[in-house]
Amino acid sequence: MTGSLVIAGLGPGSDALVTPEVSAALARASDVVGYIPYVARVAARPGLTLHASDNRVEIDRARQALGLARDGRRVVVVSSGDPGVFAMASAVFETIEAGPPAWRDLDIRVLPGITAMLAAAARAGAPLGHDFCAINLSDNLKPWGLIERRLRLAAKADFAMAFYNPRSRSRPDGFARTLDILNDACRDTRPVIFARAVSTAREQIRVVPLPEARADMADMRTVVIVGSSATRIIARAGAPFVYTPRSVPA
Amino acid sequence: MTGSLVIAGLGPGSDALVTPEVSAALARASDVVGYIPYVARVAARPGLTLHASDNRVEIDRARQALGLARDGRRVVVVSSGDPGVFAMASAVFETIEAGPPAWRDLDIRVLPGITAMLAAAARAGAPLGHDFCAINLSDNLKPWGLIERRLRLAAKADFAMAFYNPRSRSRPDGFARTLDILNDACRDTRPVIFARAVSTAREQIRVVPLPEARADMADMRTVVIVGSSATRIIARAGAPFVYTPRSVPA
Repeated sequence: MTGSLVIAGLGPGSDALVTPEVSAALARASDVVGYIPYVARVAARPGLTLHASDNRVEIDRARQALGLARDGRRVVVVSSGDPGVFAMASAVFETIEAGPPAWRDLDIRVLPGITAMLAAAARAGAPLGHDFCAINLSDNLKPWGLIERRLRLAAKADFAMAFYNPRSRSRPDGFARTLDILNDACRDTRPVIFARAVSTAREQIRVVPLPEARADMADMRTVVIVGSSATRIIARAGAPFVYTPRSVPA
Repeated sequence: MTGSLVIAGLGPGSDALVTPEVSAALARASDVVGYIPYVARVAARPGLTLHASDNRVEIDRARQALGLARDGRRVVVVSSGDPGVFAMASAVFETIEAGPPAWRDLDIRVLPGITAMLAAAARAGAPLGHDFCAINLSDNLKPWGLIERRLRLAAKADFAMAFYNPRSRSRPDGFARTLDILNDACRDTRPVIFARAVSTAREQIRVVPLPEARADMADMRTVVIVGSSATRIIARAGAPFVYTPRSVPA
């Protein structure tokens, strides 16, 4: 019996955003491996073993999943959002590269998902409708100086920006510094979107001008989108629409 | 009767990548509006009117959709990929902002989809597993000089880069210039992924080192992903895995 490893994206939270491809992979799985709250989204059933593990043990989790696949199991590693965007896919490939050669020849597939910035952008309008960048603001795995440099270059390039992991209890200060850098580099009132727990019952969307953005508006479950200099707001009775026009005049 | 306007992403091509949320919106629609090949993906049924239009008439299409919604119809504007990434959502919001105030108060929602770069990245491994940017290489709506400037700043920031619309019959030269700029700015052999028609029967994935990338490897249906300086290749019996590690050492 040949095992397989699928690295699947569950989207931002709602089952209505899980692709049929991912649902089919979960229906065929013998083992589901992932971070506790993501594994909790998979329904138990006979023949399926759920392996939930804590945060920050991505490499252990990847080794476990690869070992199970090597033993002939049909393994699905679950990520929220898209597994390739600041999620489990890179951790699995790092583990494969460092591991025994036999792991390379396993049947391994990545199934894309709706990543948080796309779900957040859709709720607000179309802030990522022109060129943009995505930056993981956590400095757990890279030096803070690199983040700072990327922020300044992104502002200079006039990208809209999507920030993942803006703030956590162990990193309370980085996002305040991010906002200081952006205010210094941009010097305008472009909109900032704080999108928390998008597509879940606890969803909250807040739009503020950059100078009014404060670090405590974000937490671990928030994705932040900062407009480019061209991003516009359409005021209306309900929440405003925020969008970035397709065109930049010559 | 109150009309509604949904701007929905059909994903890159396969029905297995259409979210249940989008399928449900299509099942409820009275009218589907979009570019010919995208509307062709929606099955005809009694009570549903399909309005297919040609490329480059995005604003006309948006006006038509808004007019239908204003008349009380349940309208779905279809995009491929994600509607908010170089697709119809920004065109609709541009039209709303320039149009009669009543359009702002319509029931308007954007439903995210799997955008081409995420599907392409998943097929190759995890090249967008660290910070990255997305650039539309078409200079139909922005000056070429701005694209060039963004390419140089993105290389300086060491982002992985995803390029949409790299090349078309009316713009044969821009992508060759893009490759020249990247070779000049990067001076290394980082991998370039050419992903054509991902998730369709005509899918083709090709990975080449940057100095060997040539403009004619891309066409209108290709999304191109260029790694960062840290992007790695895992050789194996089949197609190699390409991924960008999560970490950057201090």
